[in-house]
Amino acid sequence: MTLIVQKYGGTSVGSIDRIKAVARRVVRTHEAGAEVVVVVSAMAGETDRLLRLAAQTVDRPAGRELDQLVATGEQVSIALLAMAIEDRGHQARSFLAHQVKILTDDNFSRARILSIDPAAILDRLGERKIAVVAGFQGVDRDGDVTTLGRGGSDTTAVALAAALRADVCEIYTDVDGVYTTDPHVCPAARKLDRISHDEMLELASLGAKVLHIRAVAFAKKFGVPLHVRSSFVDGPGTWIAAEEDCMESAPITGVTYAKDEMRLRVMGVPATATAARDIIAPVSRAGLRIDVLVQGASVEDFCDISFTVPKAEAQQAKELVEHAADDLGAVGVELDGPVAKVSVVGVGIRTHTEVPAIVFETLAAKDIPVLMAATGEIKISVIIDERRLTEAVQALHEAFDLAHGSAGCEEL
Amino acid sequence: MTLIVQKYGGTSVGSIDRIKAVARRVVRTHEAGAEVVVVVSAMAGETDRLLRLAAQTVDRPAGRELDQLVATGEQVSIALLAMAIEDRGHQARSFLAHQVKILTDDNFSRARILSIDPAAILDRLGERKIAVVAGFQGVDRDGDVTTLGRGGSDTTAVALAAALRADVCEIYTDVDGVYTTDPHVCPAARKLDRISHDEMLELASLGAKVLHIRAVAFAKKFGVPLHVRSSFVDGPGTWIAAEEDCMESAPITGVTYAKDEMRLRVMGVPATATAARDIIAPVSRAGLRIDVLVQGASVEDFCDISFTVPKAEAQQAKELVEHAADDLGAVGVELDGPVAKVSVVGVGIRTHTEVPAIVFETLAAKDIPVLMAATGEIKISVIIDERRLTEAVQALHEAFDLAHGSAGCEEL
Repeated sequence: MTLIVQKYGGTSVGSIDRIKAVARRVVRTHEAGAEVVVVVSAMAGETDRLLRLAAQTVDRPAGRELDQLVATGEQVSIALLAMAIEDRGHQARSFLAHQVKILTDDNFSRARILSIDPAAILDRLGERKIAVVAGFQGVDRDGDVTTLGRGGSDTTAVALAAALRADVCEIYTDVDGVYTTDPHVCPAARKLDRISHDEMLELASLGAKVLHIRAVAFAKKFGVPLHVRSSFVDGPGTWIAAEEDCMESAPITGVTYAKDEMRLRVMGVPATATAARDIIAPVSRAGLRIDVLVQGASVEDFCDISFTVPKAEAQQAKELVEHAADDLGAVGVELDGPVAKVSVVGVGIRTHTEVPAIVFETLAAKDIPVLMAATGEIKISVIIDERRLTEAVQALHEAFDLAHGSAGCEEL
Repeated sequence: MTLIVQKYGGTSVGSIDRIKAVARRVVRTHEAGAEVVVVVSAMAGETDRLLRLAAQTVDRPAGRELDQLVATGEQVSIALLAMAIEDRGHQARSFLAHQVKILTDDNFSRARILSIDPAAILDRLGERKIAVVAGFQGVDRDGDVTTLGRGGSDTTAVALAAALRADVCEIYTDVDGVYTTDPHVCPAARKLDRISHDEMLELASLGAKVLHIRAVAFAKKFGVPLHVRSSFVDGPGTWIAAEEDCMESAPITGVTYAKDEMRLRVMGVPATATAARDIIAPVSRAGLRIDVLVQGASVEDFCDISFTVPKAEAQQAKELVEHAADDLGAVGVELDGPVAKVSVVGVGIRTHTEVPAIVFETLAAKDIPVLMAATGEIKISVIIDERRLTEAVQALHEAFDLAHGSAGCEEL
């Protein structure tokens, strides 16, 4: 029998009417003969409400009690959904993390799943019941409630699918799949039928909002096929599967971007083995997120080191770097931007060596200067002036013929 | 070391400011050297909000999923209170029912506590931590969340106090103690310093709202001293303790009442051994609550049977009784009212045989007809016209000199 894990996010269960709609869809899947395990998030807005209560109580809510608090959000959702399913004449059973049980470490608010015992759920499925599991939460070895951090419900769903050896993990969201790029930026964007886990990892980490990166990494590790679908319209979405199961032959799967970054350049750094570390360490240790980092080739024993940081943290990063640059005897520090990062992603980059050339030629033809560039195994990222972002995304989307699916492959 | 269990109701934790006030009081008790276990209810209004969500989802919410849902209310309270305590520099630890663990049967929404394992709490107390426990909920043998029904948090607190062998269980509420009668009805009402469990059971079951009857029965069974106090003002409240520890020597402790009842009279019932059963059984089986029942002495092999029922259920009860009366060949059925039940309660009734006389004389002097009367070991109840209620309560309160404490004793 087919075993399907379905995950519905906060928007999909954001009201009683939507919870009833989810129940209808779950029951339909069940009536079609599948065994169904549903993972749900808190109703949209509920987690924020709970966080506000915590913030009114103490200045910096954190730790065990915060997780004990916010975990109630998913508990409300599973109970209401189980009721709505039973109201449609099917048997349902809601599960909290400790009832499953989903064992995590004890890093509150960002716990990691260690193991899942599927026995309780399998027992219920054997009775033809529908299992409804609270996403986002776990339980540590002491029996304390933990939460998994942002995107935690996606991770719960994938981990459950792995533990239950589910045939598919369906992620229901408010978009109908994964696109070749952001349709708001590039109207020619096309929904992908299929994408590999690795490609999705790059797209997710670079700003595509449909699915959390940890969940994709989990799915890749355990070989769980994901299916990203809309909870509001019917029809297939995008399958995320092992690379060998991805038949699209185009070298590039999508174009993604990130905004609101600034570039920090440290010029004339004495080119020693530890220079980059000395520049970067204070920034990292301060908890600031460093993205694309480029160390230029040294000229006369001096080199430039550039990297991007989120706009909100740029000034703090600059001050930290200035200290380090002074100590090293560097020439100077410059902050410029805002800049944007545009990336082309695709497993075909491994074999299609001409992809970087096409990226640079395309941007040059549009007169868009590339400020920095970094290449990975299946992605190429360029840093450009944020004002040229739309133009760059559209040009690259067209250059790789993404609007027409696999057709672009032969031309390259 | 003194071990104190403190219970705060929904009103006492009804806002963030009130939760902070509770934290202050808890910390003060802790700083005075006691080990403190706090039991809290859901924030006022929260349980109703959750029940509304359930009612919007299905027509008749019930069972396992409803308990899974409403149990989140207390979970929010314990997390916020634990945060607020830690914010004051003390260590706290919140506990859900399954973390304590509070084992119940599986009668959802009205579960009964079977056992409590105090080990986890005692461990934390040993570390000088303050334990904050969710009231109202339990966990059954399958690990399912259960709730205890109305007044459940009181029961949790008393059961915990029994399991932990606490020195006292303090019940914080929005009144400052137990009164000799309702101050709204009789301004001369006086706060009692001390009352026995049995007296409190009679007062609670007869309408005094401060403490749930199940909790009092539990406290009596396990010999837990209760202290009912105000969470808004300081100062001692009323102690509820074993009879031998109650030094007040007045025969009567309080006057209580219940309204909104109707009287059903079945006249001319053939006086057989099964007549009362045949009249009562259909009413009880229909789930209607029968209160004071009086079977008159038989005259020429016929007797009258009267009892009271809640006003809302009176018409249904009458129809059921009419059927039974027809079958028995009774003369007729009459429904009248509304009536009120006024009761005097006190362990002194056992030894002061003049109490019933005083009750009847007092009412006769005010020209208040007694429609029915029933006496118990420590209470005497009379059914009167509801319009005479205030007068009757005030007269009885004065007759037993309740406004002046134990002074009344010698005069009787």
